[in-house]
Amino acid sequence: MNKRVLGIDPGFGRCGFGMIAFDGRDWQCERHGVITTEAGLDFEVRLLEIGRDIDALIEQLKPQAVVLEELFFAKSTTTALQVAEVRGVIQYLAAVKGLEVIGVKPNEIKLAVTGYGRADKPQMQEMIKAIFHLSEVPKPDDAADALAIAWTGAQKLRF
Amino acid sequence: MNKRVLGIDPGFGRCGFGMIAFDGRDWQCERHGVITTEAGLDFEVRLLEIGRDIDALIEQLKPQAVVLEELFFAKSTTTALQVAEVRGVIQYLAAVKGLEVIGVKPNEIKLAVTGYGRADKPQMQEMIKAIFHLSEVPKPDDAADALAIAWTGAQKLRF
Repeated sequence: MNKRVLGIDPGFGRCGFGMIAFDGRDWQCERHGVITTEAGLDFEVRLLEIGRDIDALIEQLKPQAVVLEELFFAKSTTTALQVAEVRGVIQYLAAVKGLEVIGVKPNEIKLAVTGYGRADKPQMQEMIKAIFHLSEVPKPDDAADALAIAWTGAQKLRF
Repeated sequence: MNKRVLGIDPGFGRCGFGMIAFDGRDWQCERHGVITTEAGLDFEVRLLEIGRDIDALIEQLKPQAVVLEELFFAKSTTTALQVAEVRGVIQYLAAVKGLEVIGVKPNEIKLAVTGYGRADKPQMQEMIKAIFHLSEVPKPDDAADALAIAWTGAQKLRF
């Protein structure tokens, strides 16, 4: 069976995604990018736009599992709650389609990608480039983060 | 135009709802209750069950607006984030149907219902019973809270 994993770096202004697939020998990066929403919109409209885009990605890319970064508390608790609202929508949409949903923690992602739980961003990005045999570091950062999230989830999942 | 407002007290174990409608003279309570999910289920399945039930309520009761209690940080931040995930799903589903979505704060609810920002639960419940001409205090508490949320939202909304 072809293994297909969609990683998501949840956010309301910028939501990164990275789709990876196992070809029988290696994990390949199939697609990566970022969903953006405008700051001036009502929050439920931003959730709607992110939800529709994620739904379309799932339809098109057909992952078996969705991996989300787990939240930790940042400076702004309001932001943390709004990111949690985005996470809720994505988990709901994945569950509607019967996909497996797992969360991965920031230090777990660093450990899975670099072997070191406190790796910095450039180290992470170079490893993502190497793991997926890419010619360049994936841009923007949110997309590279989402590929790291997908890779970490792929190690944890039981296919 | 008939004014119809669905209030929701978001939660993942118990999610209260209260549907109110304006008959041209008074606001009437049309329906109230609570959606429950089992603690042993995967969280995305709990989100799925709540989402499906809320979606069915919106289809059936046809509110023009959905009012949600806004979060404040409780003892457990994990719980607050999970409640935010539920809020995200509900806002998304309301936005899919083009409904207005507003949030109301705990002290704002107390003020709207009793005229006093620090009212206690029995005072709130007696006022809800009086406002909607009910023969008894609505049960369970989550449903009474949702009616208070709907009432507060109805005062804030511009129909």
